[in-house]
Amino acid sequence: MHFQMLRSWHERISQELDAVVEFWLRHSHDEEYGGFFTCLGQDGKIYDDLKYVWLQGRQVWMYSRLYRKVPRFRRPELLQAARAGGEFLLQHARVAPPSQKCAFVLTRDGCPVKIQRTIFSECFYVLGLDELGRVTGETRYQKEALAMMEAIVHWVREDPSELGRPQLAGTTPHDSMAVPMMLLNLVDQLSEGDAEAASRFSELGSWSAQRILMHVQRNGTAVLENVSEDGKELPGCLGRQQNPGHALEAGWFLLCYAQRQHDPALLSQIVERFVKQPFYSGWDSEHGGLFAFQDVDGLCPTQLEWNMKLWWPHTEAMIAFLMAFADTRDQELLEKFDQVAKYSFSKFRDPDAGEWLGYLTREGKVALTIKGGPFKGCFHVPRALYMCEEILESLLKETKSTLLE
Amino acid sequence: MHFQMLRSWHERISQELDAVVEFWLRHSHDEEYGGFFTCLGQDGKIYDDLKYVWLQGRQVWMYSRLYRKVPRFRRPELLQAARAGGEFLLQHARVAPPSQKCAFVLTRDGCPVKIQRTIFSECFYVLGLDELGRVTGETRYQKEALAMMEAIVHWVREDPSELGRPQLAGTTPHDSMAVPMMLLNLVDQLSEGDAEAASRFSELGSWSAQRILMHVQRNGTAVLENVSEDGKELPGCLGRQQNPGHALEAGWFLLCYAQRQHDPALLSQIVERFVKQPFYSGWDSEHGGLFAFQDVDGLCPTQLEWNMKLWWPHTEAMIAFLMAFADTRDQELLEKFDQVAKYSFSKFRDPDAGEWLGYLTREGKVALTIKGGPFKGCFHVPRALYMCEEILESLLKETKSTLLE
Repeated sequence: MHFQMLRSWHERISQELDAVVEFWLRHSHDEEYGGFFTCLGQDGKIYDDLKYVWLQGRQVWMYSRLYRKVPRFRRPELLQAARAGGEFLLQHARVAPPSQKCAFVLTRDGCPVKIQRTIFSECFYVLGLDELGRVTGETRYQKEALAMMEAIVHWVREDPSELGRPQLAGTTPHDSMAVPMMLLNLVDQLSEGDAEAASRFSELGSWSAQRILMHVQRNGTAVLENVSEDGKELPGCLGRQQNPGHALEAGWFLLCYAQRQHDPALLSQIVERFVKQPFYSGWDSEHGGLFAFQDVDGLCPTQLEWNMKLWWPHTEAMIAFLMAFADTRDQELLEKFDQVAKYSFSKFRDPDAGEWLGYLTREGKVALTIKGGPFKGCFHVPRALYMCEEILESLLKETKSTLLE
Repeated sequence: MHFQMLRSWHERISQELDAVVEFWLRHSHDEEYGGFFTCLGQDGKIYDDLKYVWLQGRQVWMYSRLYRKVPRFRRPELLQAARAGGEFLLQHARVAPPSQKCAFVLTRDGCPVKIQRTIFSECFYVLGLDELGRVTGETRYQKEALAMMEAIVHWVREDPSELGRPQLAGTTPHDSMAVPMMLLNLVDQLSEGDAEAASRFSELGSWSAQRILMHVQRNGTAVLENVSEDGKELPGCLGRQQNPGHALEAGWFLLCYAQRQHDPALLSQIVERFVKQPFYSGWDSEHGGLFAFQDVDGLCPTQLEWNMKLWWPHTEAMIAFLMAFADTRDQELLEKFDQVAKYSFSKFRDPDAGEWLGYLTREGKVALTIKGGPFKGCFHVPRALYMCEEILESLLKETKSTLLE
């Protein structure tokens, strides 16, 4: 039964990954300037040619990773597009070198349109270029990624002034979970198979993991998006905000960390706090699907989309549950993976045009028909499918060999 | 029939205005620091004590205006709260005097939390203080309003650098309709019954009206939110964006302007382009209500709330239709007023706790139960009710005297 379920999901997920990658290959490449169009309608038609730096970095990463790790994607068009995307980033993302600060969005030909006063454009620049360096073997990409990483760490841990946010008397310094999550993800990326980098970033990894764990509040019953610098709950909406998809994504980042640390106690704590709990409190028992935002006291969030069902919390939940199952063999986790994957495949998947829809109403109706936009590109869907395929493959191999014994 | 309809709406609207004002009187006053709480749940309970400057200025305006113009609201508690709100703004809104730049949000006791790189906090500061000056007769409020107005006009027409937005190579300078709309509204405010101010701001009023009219595109068939500085359509989502509620609000701002100019040709153009057309293209024929955003080519907007029904486009439509009817006696406009008012009273109104809900799904279900938040305060609902009551009163008086003749 269990084996059948794994096999069936493996097959569906592999096919789906093919269809999703095909969508981006067909519609998103800018052959003239390099980089990727991500504002794509349901059928892949470009409705805007702006280039969002987060999404450029993410697609470079995704293509490079698939090329490097999945034999059937070792296709020249993936590598070529990843390279062209990497070159586009190198040439245009940094607004005013020698400053490392990157734009948030560029015109098609690479002129800066907007700058965010955060670290995320820069983080996805690191992610993309490091992976591109691995797949091409060209050290200049990784060198650039490392230099950017240094700037990011400086902004986060020493001096954020270059980001341009004014220091105001009424702002409580606080830790937004996205920041240590992103850093932990980057440490994972940069350390893979590289003992020197692993040792160099080991302290940063532990620091980031500890910062994320600080977000477990209310006697362990809730993950809050924002806490004070010393790990206390903050007043108001900011302090009560929950984001189930983020908690689940942090969950699998932390599972990877706990595996690297060989720390089974931490691992089971993470499964409880960052995988099971966010799911049970974040799942809509009436209509299915994960809420985008919640208030830990059950008040109404002020984000207009709070009860919408967005694609990415569901892809992150799929990864978190399957990875947690592989780590623990707790049957409940496999059942939850099955539940989320069924919901996602029936609601978000587009069997006709490829890639998933991103934005549903609470009831599960399509609210936005776009396949890509300012915040959705070639990333969460193919990353989840690729990671789930990989985990399922290793589970199946293992089960088979047990059956053969 | 027509008379009956006017009389019935006059009665419902007057009662509703009483209930709405009661809600804010009961729940929003900060007796300790002055100013207003606007993050209020369905029953008026405070869920956050942050003070958004837009909403502080707007409530000072609303209370002062009601006190000055509507005899039954000549109540000391309104004037006292307006004064305390005005003093709060004077003491805390400007972040670093002598700069005129204001914060976007303050802590309860007035420390700046966030600054927007736009002019809107400053505009509502002008609106509130000018009206407070009129009602109290204290010139210092109007003096401060005029000084701020000068800064705003300087930022818009001469040099925006103090706003802090970097000039970037990829940003096309463009006119966002909100800016001239806001200026036209302020010119109207500052000029009322003041010949010197009217003459001082006359050129600015005409300039603002012309800028708004530039947003009529596609051979007069569409109002677009953003156009180039010389009135051409812009590429991409930015260029195709429509906001029916904004067009309708601009519509009644322009009707006031055309009345002041005694320009009937302009007036009938405005009724067509800014009142009827935005309504016909923005009304959801399936579920009723006005969409929040649209794409002029019928593509899917990227704003997640594009198909939600927000309170304020409906209050602005009520004003626009009733004012346009009063100006033209075109029966169609009265019918549309009736249609929008019926929708609004049945969907947004809360007969139990007072004040309207703000955020419904496309289908008209309550999506957010809050009565106030970062963008909703004591403004659009009472302003529309107060203005509609006033217009209905004058229509009824006129009809009565005609009947008596």
